[in-house]
Amino acid sequence: MRVDLELSSREPGPRDSDKPRETNPQSTFTHTTFNGQSILAATRNIISKNTLQFQLGLLKSTGRYDCFKLKWHPIYDDHRFWPVPPHLFWDSDLAKWMEAAIYFLSHQYDAELDQAVKHIVDTIRSAQREDGYLNLHYILVEPGKRWTNIRDMHEMYNAGHLIEAAIAHHDHYKTDDFLSVVTKYVHLLHANFGPGPGQRKAYPGHPEIELALLRLYKTTGDVKAYELARFFLAERGNPTGQDGQHYYDWEMVRRGEEEHKRPNSYPMSRDYWYCQAHKPILEQESIEGHAVRATYLLTGVADLVCLHKDGTQPLADAEEWTAALHRLWDNMTTKKMYLTGSIGAMAQWEGFGIDYFLPQAPDEGGCYAETCASIGAMMLAERLLYLELDSRYADVMELCLYNTVMGSMSRAGKAFTYENYLASCSGHLSRREEWFECSCCPPNVSRLFGSLGGYIWHFRTNDEISDDGGHVEEEESAHINVHLYTSAKLEFKTPRGRTVSLEQKTNWPWEGNVMFTLTQPRATSLRTTVRLRIPSWSRGAYVLTPSASPETPAALEKGYLVLSSEYIAANPSFSLAIGGFEPRFIAPHPRTNQRTLTLARGPIVYCVEDVDNGWEEDHFKDLVVDDKALPVAEEEREWGGERYVALRARGWTRNVGGWELGGRAQDEEKGVERDLVFVPYYFRGNRGGKGHMRVGLLRP
Amino acid sequence: MRVDLELSSREPGPRDSDKPRETNPQSTFTHTTFNGQSILAATRNIISKNTLQFQLGLLKSTGRYDCFKLKWHPIYDDHRFWPVPPHLFWDSDLAKWMEAAIYFLSHQYDAELDQAVKHIVDTIRSAQREDGYLNLHYILVEPGKRWTNIRDMHEMYNAGHLIEAAIAHHDHYKTDDFLSVVTKYVHLLHANFGPGPGQRKAYPGHPEIELALLRLYKTTGDVKAYELARFFLAERGNPTGQDGQHYYDWEMVRRGEEEHKRPNSYPMSRDYWYCQAHKPILEQESIEGHAVRATYLLTGVADLVCLHKDGTQPLADAEEWTAALHRLWDNMTTKKMYLTGSIGAMAQWEGFGIDYFLPQAPDEGGCYAETCASIGAMMLAERLLYLELDSRYADVMELCLYNTVMGSMSRAGKAFTYENYLASCSGHLSRREEWFECSCCPPNVSRLFGSLGGYIWHFRTNDEISDDGGHVEEEESAHINVHLYTSAKLEFKTPRGRTVSLEQKTNWPWEGNVMFTLTQPRATSLRTTVRLRIPSWSRGAYVLTPSASPETPAALEKGYLVLSSEYIAANPSFSLAIGGFEPRFIAPHPRTNQRTLTLARGPIVYCVEDVDNGWEEDHFKDLVVDDKALPVAEEEREWGGERYVALRARGWTRNVGGWELGGRAQDEEKGVERDLVFVPYYFRGNRGGKGHMRVGLLRP
Repeated sequence: MRVDLELSSREPGPRDSDKPRETNPQSTFTHTTFNGQSILAATRNIISKNTLQFQLGLLKSTGRYDCFKLKWHPIYDDHRFWPVPPHLFWDSDLAKWMEAAIYFLSHQYDAELDQAVKHIVDTIRSAQREDGYLNLHYILVEPGKRWTNIRDMHEMYNAGHLIEAAIAHHDHYKTDDFLSVVTKYVHLLHANFGPGPGQRKAYPGHPEIELALLRLYKTTGDVKAYELARFFLAERGNPTGQDGQHYYDWEMVRRGEEEHKRPNSYPMSRDYWYCQAHKPILEQESIEGHAVRATYLLTGVADLVCLHKDGTQPLADAEEWTAALHRLWDNMTTKKMYLTGSIGAMAQWEGFGIDYFLPQAPDEGGCYAETCASIGAMMLAERLLYLELDSRYADVMELCLYNTVMGSMSRAGKAFTYENYLASCSGHLSRREEWFECSCCPPNVSRLFGSLGGYIWHFRTNDEISDDGGHVEEEESAHINVHLYTSAKLEFKTPRGRTVSLEQKTNWPWEGNVMFTLTQPRATSLRTTVRLRIPSWSRGAYVLTPSASPETPAALEKGYLVLSSEYIAANPSFSLAIGGFEPRFIAPHPRTNQRTLTLARGPIVYCVEDVDNGWEEDHFKDLVVDDKALPVAEEEREWGGERYVALRARGWTRNVGGWELGGRAQDEEKGVERDLVFVPYYFRGNRGGKGHMRVGLLRP
Repeated sequence: MRVDLELSSREPGPRDSDKPRETNPQSTFTHTTFNGQSILAATRNIISKNTLQFQLGLLKSTGRYDCFKLKWHPIYDDHRFWPVPPHLFWDSDLAKWMEAAIYFLSHQYDAELDQAVKHIVDTIRSAQREDGYLNLHYILVEPGKRWTNIRDMHEMYNAGHLIEAAIAHHDHYKTDDFLSVVTKYVHLLHANFGPGPGQRKAYPGHPEIELALLRLYKTTGDVKAYELARFFLAERGNPTGQDGQHYYDWEMVRRGEEEHKRPNSYPMSRDYWYCQAHKPILEQESIEGHAVRATYLLTGVADLVCLHKDGTQPLADAEEWTAALHRLWDNMTTKKMYLTGSIGAMAQWEGFGIDYFLPQAPDEGGCYAETCASIGAMMLAERLLYLELDSRYADVMELCLYNTVMGSMSRAGKAFTYENYLASCSGHLSRREEWFECSCCPPNVSRLFGSLGGYIWHFRTNDEISDDGGHVEEEESAHINVHLYTSAKLEFKTPRGRTVSLEQKTNWPWEGNVMFTLTQPRATSLRTTVRLRIPSWSRGAYVLTPSASPETPAALEKGYLVLSSEYIAANPSFSLAIGGFEPRFIAPHPRTNQRTLTLARGPIVYCVEDVDNGWEEDHFKDLVVDDKALPVAEEEREWGGERYVALRARGWTRNVGGWELGGRAQDEEKGVERDLVFVPYYFRGNRGGKGHMRVGLLRP
């Protein structure tokens, strides 16, 4: 008989038997410290030192900071973007920044950030209505109209981010000042939305609150939060949910809105695939619409299944939900994801195109590739790793992290991309901006890096009770699954109070050698298993030192090298050398019709930029590289105190003149040969230049 | 001093000095007879024997035939497609069918067609309102709302087709029964739309009436028709035309319609590029939006410039209009046209995508390629040839004719395509339909083939008066420009009553040898010049027999071999052997990112179909051909009494398995080698099969 118990070392709050066990990533990131000079640690330092303060300044100068004081701001009169006014996301901008700031505060005190968080929380508390309602727009700008446009007006989305910020606040400050506010709001929502008579059969146009509610449930055990999330997920896309109608149709009629009046993101009237509400989630065959909404939604679904898996809240149709998760994940990662870990080819709905439609740039048919969407993909991957330890999830998580997500911020931490094209064009140069009117991405990057430890690894502890023919023995076990490699240390206590730590040291992502040291009390019955991801791009090339033996076994399971407790006991220090760091050419799926080659090395995807290749005048549209004829050289470089590996190869520009409609097909004529310099895609756009850049170059 | 005079051998109607000279194609098609067994003559026979009667039956069974009796039809209650009800195009369906039927009647009497035309005209006459207004929808279904939605409701489009049918009716029946009806309607429009105070500053959402009005002007000399057309063209896209507003904004507000209520074809609110009204035509840099609207509009523009060119109605800014024509034509043919002569990649707005965006199928990013759009491109090309004799216009005209347009009809003449994909996919098999709810294409094909002679050649006659130092000599000249080759005969009279005929005999498009015989009175002062197009795909390979000499010169000018009057006088029978009939591989522009090869032979573009290549299960997505390694064999075939040339070559299917995101780029692995059979694209979908087809195959 085995009883799985989860470690819970940090939370105050409910401790009774209703308290659910944690799922992730919230369970590990506070247990992680980063050390050394890795690019991840450097990025965290930049955010900690520059970005959060810089973004705080922008929150102040744009009016966001004090918006919950509920004074009129001129921007509230701005009606350019029907139905969504420019201030509609302010609640979430504040909340995401607070959540990020708190994550960093939990590692290092900063008086300015600390004061700002407390100030914002105070204004939010003061703005909450008597009944618990809390939304800037509907309290101040359109009072009396709350819940009249659940589809477009982001009330629930904003609520979700407030909840997540409140959880972070509660965990760090150990008070309920903010948590009680959002709990009251959640109870109001729970009373008004649900399956009961008289309740609205609605679900948010922009999913987010689902995963936030499930985090809240995991923090406080508040079953209303769980019920509300589960209702939102199960009800979504019901064609006859509200009085026999699709909820969004029903509320549209009540708003007095005609069928053919619709936001610009809806290409056709009532195209509810835009917000994944075209049919119930369990019936959805492919991932569709707005990519951030889709990944946030599926993260919520995965959280629901996680709670089933760990026995906290059983789900009768868990298999169906799991099947939907796998189906939509597979569709996304095999048919709708760029080589950089970006998703979403379509600008109009900020989301997915049809299968295999992955042009590199807006002027080549479409490319949107929003930063937040790849963050959403990482969040989803992290939950899927909890449900099923398979390196294919972690491979995608790492791809998103080191390329789209990390590259969305300048190396100085004060400029950001919203869209992450794989190639620039004259209308969209490879540049970053300080801020956006809808500024979801910049604080989301801060937040992601603030909780980065949760993506690096998972841990779990068990009390095992083996009843061997009347002879009862008890022993503890710890399981650590290492998804990403960097220089960092994980430290946690077992239920019996033993401290376990695992430290990894590496020059990843530039080299594949990782040194591990596990520390735990000697001579205890604590048995520790460590699972190490073997990335698929390594093609299974790895060396474990000391090597395993029949007495200290290690085995590969679904892309993870499982080091048995015997191995760990015998080798508390060990190293893993992962191969695949020679430069390689990668390519999009043949069905994309993008017959291109891209240089990659380890998890890093490369691009060409005009800064290094100054002869380019047209976004490298005609540049050809040959994966067979040309050797690729490596070159260590340093910029702004950070080291990176550049690559050099030969290529040539094709001549495209001479084409005529109906004329004879010509061979692609070799034009000028070029020595090419490639830099990591994340590093693009930091050194000036004309803003010409490309990831996928033509195959010969 | 030269005085150009145009031949006008057929029209009754005004003969005073206001009578404008004709432009084309209306000037030549009634002078042309088709003979022999060419594919064009065969297609005309099919339409004459099968299609017109078949379509008449459909007009009757669907309610169109008697709709102008103004009785209620259940379909008028059908509101599925706001704002356009399904019956909105019925006026034009009837008109286009009548126009087509009359063109064929002018060559051969058919009692059923003749009676039907007369019946429809009677009902139309009886339906016209007292003040001249004439539109089924606004007379019967929404009385009192005329001209409230010029943008979407196709009133002017329907009027245009009625005008064109009335011109055909007038020319054939030599009565004003129908012409007087449309003239009265035009006068009503002229009174209500124009630059004067109190007049509406509107222009049709779907252009068509512009070219129809200019045809009417050329037929009757009615200056009001000219003025109205010119107003529509000049006013179009005026941002402040109506009370300081864009007309479509102005009328939308008057309808009580909000900005964000819009038809499904408008991806964003107020996207007036959909109907080429985003800016004035003279300022438009690229061809945009709905492809049929665009080509019809530019045909009207070209007609306007034609009237300037021949001195009938001077146009102060003719150079600007000409520049706009060239700019938009060039954009269309070099960046937005498929290899089959199709245009329009985007289904949502039935029109143009961005430059170089030309996927082959809906499941590969988009392909719409409407039949009517290629007919519009032919109409435009024909006018441009009148303005500037350059074979590049005729090359496109021929490409459209033999591929998209001819292929839109089954060889039995009773099934049609609306969209002409270059590749089938599971949602869009390569099939034809008998009819469509919006059935613009089928009668348009009939109409095009009815007036085909106007596209084959142009002619012009001059009275030349040379005043050589007091010694006045008069002589006549005739000029015949041969754009397309087929077995046909052109016959016309000069102003002095001399009959000239040019006959061509050829097995085109299968062979390039064309025999010409010019017949004209012997020993007169009539000097005749013949210009013969040398297609660009022939790469200038041609042999003229007898050959030219210094005394009987011939010279190549802009892709036309100009046979001097001396040559013609010496060689009334001559032949031209054009090369380029060996199979060739053609390819889309490199910038399309469609790295494919297509077989062509002469003007015929080829495809593969599963009927001949029965192993195919997935629309030939993985089929590769090599233009260098493989010989292409020809094979004469016969089907349904028609001969065609099939092609055979070797190819192979690539293996696409084994791809993984971020994994090493693989060489495209050769799978199974195949003997491939290629048939003309126009011939596709006639022999059953699974409906799998593709034009562009992968390059190795």
